[in-house]
Amino acid sequence: MSLPTLILNAQADRRLKLGHLWIYSNEVDVARSPLKQFEMGQQALVTTHSGKPLGIALMNPTSLICGRIINRDEKHPLNKSLLVHRFKQSLALRELTFDEPFYRLVYGDSDLLPGLVVDRFGDYLVVQIASAGMELVKNEIIEALVQVIKPLGILLANDHSARALENLPEYTEVVYGEVPEVVELVENGTRFLAPVHGGQKTGWFYDHRVNRAQLQQYVQGKRVLDVFSYIGGWGVQAAVAGASEVYCVDVSESALDFVEQNAELNGVADKITCFEGKAIEVLKHLIAEDERFDIVVLDPPAFIKKRKDQKAGEAAYRHINELGMRLLGRDGLLVAGSCSMHLGKDTLVEIVRAAGRHLDRHVQIIGQGGQGPDHPVHPAIPETDYLKAVFARVYLA
Amino acid sequence: MSLPTLILNAQADRRLKLGHLWIYSNEVDVARSPLKQFEMGQQALVTTHSGKPLGIALMNPTSLICGRIINRDEKHPLNKSLLVHRFKQSLALRELTFDEPFYRLVYGDSDLLPGLVVDRFGDYLVVQIASAGMELVKNEIIEALVQVIKPLGILLANDHSARALENLPEYTEVVYGEVPEVVELVENGTRFLAPVHGGQKTGWFYDHRVNRAQLQQYVQGKRVLDVFSYIGGWGVQAAVAGASEVYCVDVSESALDFVEQNAELNGVADKITCFEGKAIEVLKHLIAEDERFDIVVLDPPAFIKKRKDQKAGEAAYRHINELGMRLLGRDGLLVAGSCSMHLGKDTLVEIVRAAGRHLDRHVQIIGQGGQGPDHPVHPAIPETDYLKAVFARVYLA
Repeated sequence: MSLPTLILNAQADRRLKLGHLWIYSNEVDVARSPLKQFEMGQQALVTTHSGKPLGIALMNPTSLICGRIINRDEKHPLNKSLLVHRFKQSLALRELTFDEPFYRLVYGDSDLLPGLVVDRFGDYLVVQIASAGMELVKNEIIEALVQVIKPLGILLANDHSARALENLPEYTEVVYGEVPEVVELVENGTRFLAPVHGGQKTGWFYDHRVNRAQLQQYVQGKRVLDVFSYIGGWGVQAAVAGASEVYCVDVSESALDFVEQNAELNGVADKITCFEGKAIEVLKHLIAEDERFDIVVLDPPAFIKKRKDQKAGEAAYRHINELGMRLLGRDGLLVAGSCSMHLGKDTLVEIVRAAGRHLDRHVQIIGQGGQGPDHPVHPAIPETDYLKAVFARVYLA
Repeated sequence: MSLPTLILNAQADRRLKLGHLWIYSNEVDVARSPLKQFEMGQQALVTTHSGKPLGIALMNPTSLICGRIINRDEKHPLNKSLLVHRFKQSLALRELTFDEPFYRLVYGDSDLLPGLVVDRFGDYLVVQIASAGMELVKNEIIEALVQVIKPLGILLANDHSARALENLPEYTEVVYGEVPEVVELVENGTRFLAPVHGGQKTGWFYDHRVNRAQLQQYVQGKRVLDVFSYIGGWGVQAAVAGASEVYCVDVSESALDFVEQNAELNGVADKITCFEGKAIEVLKHLIAEDERFDIVVLDPPAFIKKRKDQKAGEAAYRHINELGMRLLGRDGLLVAGSCSMHLGKDTLVEIVRAAGRHLDRHVQIIGQGGQGPDHPVHPAIPETDYLKAVFARVYLA
């Protein structure tokens, strides 16, 4: 198989040699390898300026990131055989770290499969493709998944906005077997129903699993407020783990319907109350009503999606954390979450610190969690490390 | 009670207002409040330049850090009553986060008790005093601990080098009841005997508890190498959790004697082998013998004790991590620990990344742990956040 060659500028190979997988368009020697010679999604042999092979990349000639390394071994391009190999390696990690088949099976760059995400719900797989290169091998992806996992059904949930960057259409399609509207999963011993067809992202967020497990240790007999609850990941698990009362806040009525179903499924419906509304408005209302909770969990959507949102986003995190902290009693626990890659870990701690000082409370950070092991971080790609959960004890000293 | 006043320079109150507790000698208005007027360990009322009270500090007029805030409420100086109040607050956190009475009960600044550390081993307490101010109230500390905890014995383990900075003598003394040579503790379900009289620090390191718990999930049937094992915190727990074979490496013969006792105590002596020797030499020997392990744990002493050790210390971490990684098989787990506050979290990840690239292995960071909740981080005092455990899957892609 003969691949076209992408030649880098002098010194432009440095990041790749550190282990990174991305090639920016301004790093390409476009005199010798014009970007327009490449087709969308095509594979190319990447070389240094002096011609040393660095691996094979999936090309997107119109994007700022014009290539992503799919294999450092230039003898093996992306095909079904490589996909089977990679899926087996991905599966080995998940089988090492989890007892049950509910996890993110493939996490893009970190699993050396840039542009591909696969969540597993037992016998069902939900696949997200975010790059033109992966879209071209869609059929091979499905075949390889069938071979390695033997699922009953595969759903392509290609309805996310990142696809527009690669000029890919948005669609949702069952591409193998059958996938029910709602699938069941187990996380930290609690059962959930998740809407894989019409929910957020793949229908469930596995990334906070270890943080939700940590919370379980602290909830016995406590009154818990779960803000941005979605379908109850934090709240229902807290109720199962022994919380006395749990209040879930979400703007989506259908998400809260799932909270109630999931509470029912685990026999804790009597402990759970849902508040439908915008988080800030509900929090302000609860403050006005002089409500107090032992534990407040804040797991908002990304307030900083792009660099340009940095300042406004940090202000939004500050605001929500201060509102949450005001709802704690004399000695409470704030769980400050963030899935914004652009919000640094230290900045989130700093936001919690500032809220505590403002309210004249002493703050102790008793845990700083990140993504679970099914969302491994690629140590050369900071973008793969996005999730934070700061556990802060807040009390009147 | 009338206290002498310490007046800060203009703008020198900024750090304290952020929540920090330390006052540096160059921040003091020495014209109006000469440092030499203060006695070692004396309490002083701290004010802004314009006279606004900021709280009460424990003074050490000869030290770079000449004062540490003991209370922001200037009406209540450090005495038995304040100590009882603080110990109750410390205990509340530990009782929230642990089922059994084995933990760090007091963690200095983070528990608003600068210069004081107390480790609890059931009915026995081991106390470390690191400041002249705390030394002056030694008797009150003992009385308050007796009142709040009702221990059978209290050991003052004041034999650490930090005391020289405060011109305090080094000594070890049973100051209440009786404390046996060896105490028992339980961590993550495993029993340990720890030498509180002649061991390292207080005899045990509770700080890695949550990281050792995380490791337990991955060890079933695995061959584990525990480097810098001390008395077996990682290794014996791994054996109890199902590892097939565990090898403990330490330079101290007496530490390894305890590894054997602790293995025996938990019925896993047949799984554990001890190698006495310097870590680097043992690792090189194992590499020469072509040994391979599924999991290598590196939990070295602080290689960077002071800023001046930064470069040499980082090189030492790089060296040990690369040696450890070379002992992994085709798909293994490296646990890279560091208790050096001066080694940043990102730097340790970077060290692991570089070792992986050097050996042409793909690295996935599947966990980034810190201190357990009995070592809370004070969000305004970065020095309280020192512990790291990077869990890295390392494999041939």
